[in-house]
Amino acid sequence: MSQPVPKDALADEHTPFIRNAWYVACFSEDVPPNRPFGRKLLGENVAFYRKSDGTVVAMKDRCPHRSFPLSASRVDGDEIVCGYHGIRYDSAGRCKLVPTQAAAPRALQVPTFKVIETAPVVWIWMGDPTIAERTPLPPAPWMLDGSGWATSRSYLNVQASYVFLHENLLDLSHLTYLHAATFGTPDYAKAPFETELGSETIVVRRTVQPTRLPPIYANPLNMQGVDAARIVTSTYFTPGLSVSAVVLRNLEEPQDRRTDHHIRTAQLVTPCDPTSVHYHFIVARDFAVEDKEASEFILKGIQAAFAEDVFALENIARVRREDPDQSFVEKSISSDRAGVTLRRRLSSLAEQEQ
Amino acid sequence: MSQPVPKDALADEHTPFIRNAWYVACFSEDVPPNRPFGRKLLGENVAFYRKSDGTVVAMKDRCPHRSFPLSASRVDGDEIVCGYHGIRYDSAGRCKLVPTQAAAPRALQVPTFKVIETAPVVWIWMGDPTIAERTPLPPAPWMLDGSGWATSRSYLNVQASYVFLHENLLDLSHLTYLHAATFGTPDYAKAPFETELGSETIVVRRTVQPTRLPPIYANPLNMQGVDAARIVTSTYFTPGLSVSAVVLRNLEEPQDRRTDHHIRTAQLVTPCDPTSVHYHFIVARDFAVEDKEASEFILKGIQAAFAEDVFALENIARVRREDPDQSFVEKSISSDRAGVTLRRRLSSLAEQEQ
Amino acid sequence: MSQPVPKDALADEHTPFIRNAWYVACFSEDVPPNRPFGRKLLGENVAFYRKSDGTVVAMKDRCPHRSFPLSASRVDGDEIVCGYHGIRYDSAGRCKLVPTQAAAPRALQVPTFKVIETAPVVWIWMGDPTIAERTPLPPAPWMLDGSGWATSRSYLNVQASYVFLHENLLDLSHLTYLHAATFGTPDYAKAPFETELGSETIVVRRTVQPTRLPPIYANPLNMQGVDAARIVTSTYFTPGLSVSAVVLRNLEEPQDRRTDHHIRTAQLVTPCDPTSVHYHFIVARDFAVEDKEASEFILKGIQAAFAEDVFALENIARVRREDPDQSFVEKSISSDRAGVTLRRRLSSLAEQEQ
Repeated sequence: MSQPVPKDALADEHTPFIRNAWYVACFSEDVPPNRPFGRKLLGENVAFYRKSDGTVVAMKDRCPHRSFPLSASRVDGDEIVCGYHGIRYDSAGRCKLVPTQAAAPRALQVPTFKVIETAPVVWIWMGDPTIAERTPLPPAPWMLDGSGWATSRSYLNVQASYVFLHENLLDLSHLTYLHAATFGTPDYAKAPFETELGSETIVVRRTVQPTRLPPIYANPLNMQGVDAARIVTSTYFTPGLSVSAVVLRNLEEPQDRRTDHHIRTAQLVTPCDPTSVHYHFIVARDFAVEDKEASEFILKGIQAAFAEDVFALENIARVRREDPDQSFVEKSISSDRAGVTLRRRLSSLAEQEQ
Repeated sequence: MSQPVPKDALADEHTPFIRNAWYVACFSEDVPPNRPFGRKLLGENVAFYRKSDGTVVAMKDRCPHRSFPLSASRVDGDEIVCGYHGIRYDSAGRCKLVPTQAAAPRALQVPTFKVIETAPVVWIWMGDPTIAERTPLPPAPWMLDGSGWATSRSYLNVQASYVFLHENLLDLSHLTYLHAATFGTPDYAKAPFETELGSETIVVRRTVQPTRLPPIYANPLNMQGVDAARIVTSTYFTPGLSVSAVVLRNLEEPQDRRTDHHIRTAQLVTPCDPTSVHYHFIVARDFAVEDKEASEFILKGIQAAFAEDVFALENIARVRREDPDQSFVEKSISSDRAGVTLRRRLSSLAEQEQ
Repeated sequence: MSQPVPKDALADEHTPFIRNAWYVACFSEDVPPNRPFGRKLLGENVAFYRKSDGTVVAMKDRCPHRSFPLSASRVDGDEIVCGYHGIRYDSAGRCKLVPTQAAAPRALQVPTFKVIETAPVVWIWMGDPTIAERTPLPPAPWMLDGSGWATSRSYLNVQASYVFLHENLLDLSHLTYLHAATFGTPDYAKAPFETELGSETIVVRRTVQPTRLPPIYANPLNMQGVDAARIVTSTYFTPGLSVSAVVLRNLEEPQDRRTDHHIRTAQLVTPCDPTSVHYHFIVARDFAVEDKEASEFILKGIQAAFAEDVFALENIARVRREDPDQSFVEKSISSDRAGVTLRRRLSSLAEQEQ
């Protein structure tokens, strides 16, 4: 994991994690008021709990005394009490009490991590805290509670490197094939697309029109069997966020009465360890906002399609891992430009952080 | 796996595979007409499919673009279409189409393997193809469909090196002990036997007479409780085939009216990885040829006995793997001559191929 | 496992096993009269069987011929007959018969281990046998059959190094926290305690008085809700034995009529491999000796409490194993004096044995 990163290398499961980035650690409800929560993030076990004012705290999930997991411990007010010997730590990880002795030793100090909650998600920064201060959260306000958009959300643990999940999310040419049974359509792969390489973002935009919408979109919009436009923009923002934004338009309506319907997915990508990834996603739309059934229908459709991605990503990870020829080099095609750029940037970021 | 092989070493789970040999990859029915099939052979994942004329094709089970398994892809006519991005390959592994671009890059080339189907088995050659051309398939015509012999077949995946399966198959002195409950008899271990070391083959022949046949043979032949002869010849042909040939004779019939009954097992041994083996076997006989019940009875008996071999081989693999003394050297006895010769030859073949 | 042991190091899962010590291999009933028994001890597979006079024999669980496990073989009188080829060994591990040949080769020799049975346990010595002769069994006569004490016993396989189980057993300050739901009481952690470092033994004694006894003690003694004394002495004797001895006293009885009630647990600790331990325990008491229900009630209570220890030890092992910072050094507190001394001694013993 910590070999030197060659120039121009494409990031893969061997590339060190990018630590200076905001990642979604968990959904807000994963950290209840009175109980800690544990999760492995960027290879490291982290414990979360809420102080009495509701603020989320994150620290290394290892009591420095005898390594009991703090995530299996007890929350008491603003402090966490190790479940093995009752040693207490405050939200800054400082030891406040060792029950068997008078003094609380300063050496018993738990490293903490900067966290910000923007419900329904909790973000964590596991790199240099001074850089965190000048780094804003990735921009996806429509996914947040109270945004006015209808949202639904889910979580998958995928046994594959986060790098390949990101590459998959920037690559829409696979919809016709991998997602033939869900939201892919036959005309998708050959539709025109453009790639924009920004200094931070990477954008792929594909316009499919006229097309027939798959049921996941057609049904809630009552657009079955009509000529429609489907414009999909995939944007990589940071190692922790990619956004899939879809615009849907009924081409059979008179041009002056056409409405753009928007449906967006916040793809919240967080490395768990080198070969697995926490995949949170929030689907938001600006139409049929009060329609709970539509929310459920769309979420089920998205889950079915993402299960196909999980199948692909986990099988690819297995194929890569099992090949006795570990020097095998994958070949890229022209539609990989966005993904290859992304992987080159991740590799370069990792090199800078080392 | 790739350490230099010392002279006179006995092959074991650390010996490199012998690549220049025909191995049974699978049964014919494992590769249906319209769907690919994947299997790990000699440590490498291989995808199989049938062209429209029924010919079986074998290639590396990894799309060279993004490593999706071709065995999880779609067959279309004579081509295979990667399930991830729809890239098409012909039966020679050449890329014919990338949906998102005009040209099919020559760099997208999947390595293929030579295969020959002699139903009910599919053979594969994973070594130098020029040697394949001058190497005939191992000889066991009686096991094939239409041979006139009654056959039945089965498959086991055994968690042990193929080397120890081969050694087990050449070693009949274990029948009295390991197979006491199935087809071993108490007189078996002490019966006279001879070993013939040919330039290619290794033969062990054991004559047990007069003896009482175990039910697996006595019942279908109506030879319960009679004095019989049981002559068993085990022949190692290649790293992929060993044959157990049994002659059964009723010694209570007048000498001029005695018939030799034959029952043979094609032991089709194919390394999966260093510590597991694909074990296909086909049992064939020239008596009671139309008797389906006899076929089932004999197959069940063979399966019960081979389950004892699997128990032994997997436990031995565990014992070898778990011993903290990894320099432990097993001691051989006089009846191991055939097996030791076989293992020395496998070791020497592996050395030549490196 | 075999790195040099630094001076003053604390033993942990990486420290080599202490071989020159008596360990409980199994309970007497684990070795029935006519069938061998196999168990991994100190990283090595060992086979046990009883000779016709009932004496227990222990030897390496690997036939020197082809590595079949002797624990899966057959006992015949005083000998063991390998289940693969029928090779016979006597109780000194000497080959007595190879069925397929006239002579029994002297090279076929199975290493044996010294064992002593003091029912209900079988002790094994896996180090230098000359040291075994001058080393008595660890002293816990009250745990033996026929001692006059009421006993009950159980076994756990714990996925943690035996070192941390020993440390846990010498450390009683965790009762208030880890065992809050079972036999811990709130006043336990802060009760006065003393540590005695003998040349061999390490003793921690804690006096909690007046206190209320937890149900596990109060119920069988009818001491619910009364002021009581609870004096607990934890003594480390050898790498294979630690004893928890409890004295219980009703402080509401007149001083001249008070009885000391004793309950002791023999903590029989035997490394399985570096990261797992065989944990046999025998609970003995000198009160309500004929009360079978009390025995069952106490054993169930002990099992519930030890399940909490297993939870802690296995989670700690996971936390230690998964931390990417493998140079993390745990900090000790004043109540760790006994445990730290023990771990320093184990480390030093291991160094001497290398």
